[in-house]
Amino acid sequence: MELKDLCERVKAAKYKTAQLSTEERNNALKHIAEKLVKGSERILKANADDIAVAEEKGMSPALLDRLRLSTQRIEGMSEGLRQVSELPDPLAEVLEEWERPNGLKLKKVRVPLGVIGIIYESRPNVTADAFALCFKSGNAVILKGGSDAIRSNTAITELIREGLTECGIDPDAIGLIEATDRETTKLFMQQRDYVDVLIPRGSAGLIRSVVENSTIPVIETGAGNCHIYVDAAADEEKAIPILINAKTQRLGVCNTCESLIIHEDIKDSIFPKLAQALHEKKVEIRGDEEAQAASSLVVAATEEDFAKEYLDLLISVKTVKSVEEAIAHINRYSTHHSEAIITEDKEAAEKFLSGVDSACVYVNASTRFTDGFEFGFGAEIGISTQMLHARGPMGLRELTSYKYKIYGNGQVRG
Amino acid sequence: MELKDLCERVKAAKYKTAQLSTEERNNALKHIAEKLVKGSERILKANADDIAVAEEKGMSPALLDRLRLSTQRIEGMSEGLRQVSELPDPLAEVLEEWERPNGLKLKKVRVPLGVIGIIYESRPNVTADAFALCFKSGNAVILKGGSDAIRSNTAITELIREGLTECGIDPDAIGLIEATDRETTKLFMQQRDYVDVLIPRGSAGLIRSVVENSTIPVIETGAGNCHIYVDAAADEEKAIPILINAKTQRLGVCNTCESLIIHEDIKDSIFPKLAQALHEKKVEIRGDEEAQAASSLVVAATEEDFAKEYLDLLISVKTVKSVEEAIAHINRYSTHHSEAIITEDKEAAEKFLSGVDSACVYVNASTRFTDGFEFGFGAEIGISTQMLHARGPMGLRELTSYKYKIYGNGQVRG
Repeated sequence: MELKDLCERVKAAKYKTAQLSTEERNNALKHIAEKLVKGSERILKANADDIAVAEEKGMSPALLDRLRLSTQRIEGMSEGLRQVSELPDPLAEVLEEWERPNGLKLKKVRVPLGVIGIIYESRPNVTADAFALCFKSGNAVILKGGSDAIRSNTAITELIREGLTECGIDPDAIGLIEATDRETTKLFMQQRDYVDVLIPRGSAGLIRSVVENSTIPVIETGAGNCHIYVDAAADEEKAIPILINAKTQRLGVCNTCESLIIHEDIKDSIFPKLAQALHEKKVEIRGDEEAQAASSLVVAATEEDFAKEYLDLLISVKTVKSVEEAIAHINRYSTHHSEAIITEDKEAAEKFLSGVDSACVYVNASTRFTDGFEFGFGAEIGISTQMLHARGPMGLRELTSYKYKIYGNGQVRG
Repeated sequence: MELKDLCERVKAAKYKTAQLSTEERNNALKHIAEKLVKGSERILKANADDIAVAEEKGMSPALLDRLRLSTQRIEGMSEGLRQVSELPDPLAEVLEEWERPNGLKLKKVRVPLGVIGIIYESRPNVTADAFALCFKSGNAVILKGGSDAIRSNTAITELIREGLTECGIDPDAIGLIEATDRETTKLFMQQRDYVDVLIPRGSAGLIRSVVENSTIPVIETGAGNCHIYVDAAADEEKAIPILINAKTQRLGVCNTCESLIIHEDIKDSIFPKLAQALHEKKVEIRGDEEAQAASSLVVAATEEDFAKEYLDLLISVKTVKSVEEAIAHINRYSTHHSEAIITEDKEAAEKFLSGVDSACVYVNASTRFTDGFEFGFGAEIGISTQMLHARGPMGLRELTSYKYKIYGNGQVRG
């Protein structure tokens, strides 16, 4: 289908999707959850074709693993849909209600964003996940997945569309862009008349390209150069496990710690133990001169190291004289995702919480908690690193906007 | 000053502005309010130079009037600053607070957006107004005004900067781009590393250019093709005054009614009276065939008329068979700003309120109420017509984002 046709159809469907009742949306999600399991064979066959093409192209084992589906993974997708169906309906909420002296009654209510565009890379399970979150919050969705997963994505989308039709719902509540060329992707980013919001999910390169080329409002997600600052008043029994957890529990994710900041007062006490613990986990430590002097495990860092999201067994170390200097360093180098201070000093903690300009700022806890599930949202479409609309983990509420309903009895403006 | 330098300085100042107390911000606003009045002579001299250049260029009397300042207009600007200083501080609000089963305590608090870029046209009083709202909400601001007002804007900005310095505040909380060429404006829209949000204020052409060229997140404001739907169950004693108010009270503003939709059942009863009332106000009526047949005051409308924001003594008329058809027509042609239904039928009213995809939807009241002051926000930076971040009138709260402060005692992720 032509891109324009697809956009028009999904836009037309958004008005209907927005009017579905909570029950209609939840029932459809449950029905589609079953439908995916029943259609496993179709999905697996399409996926096998994707895998065959990818292997021929010489795709790396790690990427092949992300692309590969199994009965178990399809059951996981299905379970995800069922869980989303059980979450509270974000559209049921009245945000505010008030009356003006002239008698006008105002009601601020949640509404869906409309058509959400999602551009993502090769994991085909995103197709079902993203649909579930967008649909649950009353939105229609246009998906543009990676070319490597196109057959899998098509099979999953077809099953979802069939499931919607079986529930009496317009199947154009979901559309998949089948063309996989870059020109189509660029054209898609210009469809401001049809798409209300664009959310890119994937590599830093993908996100940059969307930010630079889109005329549709974008929610920037993902990049995390997260810091842990170990203060002069840190408790080492908290500092060591938190740092090790934040750096090594999972390497390739955005809430992983990439940079350690230490107060100079602890460089010869706690820091050597931190360095030893990192070393035991095979983390290479790149630090400034003070850090190098304090531990033989530290090699020299360059300016570039401090700005890097390694996603690897690497960490940078910066020494500071005060919490203020730590805050300034973070505000300069961070991606405004998640940062933590380890301290028993409440005043230093409050300074850090207020001064650090990031979505999530922690005292004595791991940055790995920045996650929609860990926050209790029950879902997550991504983690926003921009200031506009939503910041930090985005659940169902973050996929909504609002409108004002205003009740009068003949009021005119004087 | 080079654009890059200016952006760097304002970005550095944003961290300090965000940390100012409520009192520091309010006192500075009051001080600057006085400062502008005391500096009237300097502003008026600069403004006289702008006027002289504009007259030489042959600027129209209407635009010259927008550009011209007077002692009284400066007092108005000053009074505006004083009023903003008295509004509640949006940053004082804790939005949510909860605890997770693992003992993590989360606090969602308001924070400034950071650096707000405002691109506007020739009214120099916007310089002081926009500064006041951004600064009150803890933001730093970079202003790019029209070239015609550059001398006036420079004088006003200088006085604000002096006032900030006298209050012990970094004057780079405000920056004015002095270059007036288009290249600089385009370059400014690409400064995503420095500017957090861009708000264009002005003509549809200006806004389109910003949307198309900016890599900074934009809040689209302004365009209003607002509809009034007179239902089968309308009370004519409400319908006539509301329509006349919405169409004629002020012609050149975005919440003015541009299109009338009538239910076919009232085309020979209420509609001729509406047409007569519009005619008496010198409004030209362009309607579909049914409307033309119902009143000799109606001339033929083209498809284009229905999509137009006239900002003039013109209105389009569309006849429909049902509230559903009215909703579909609005969702197709409106700019999603403000629409109203006139009806005594509660069911039709609720259908309209839910089904119309606009920021502000009214029952039995004029669309002219879409305004930050009329809503009780005490201020307004613009009216958003997009779904992301803020919708409808934007006051101080809409100039903020949020962050999560998370308190732990050693938690790590399992």
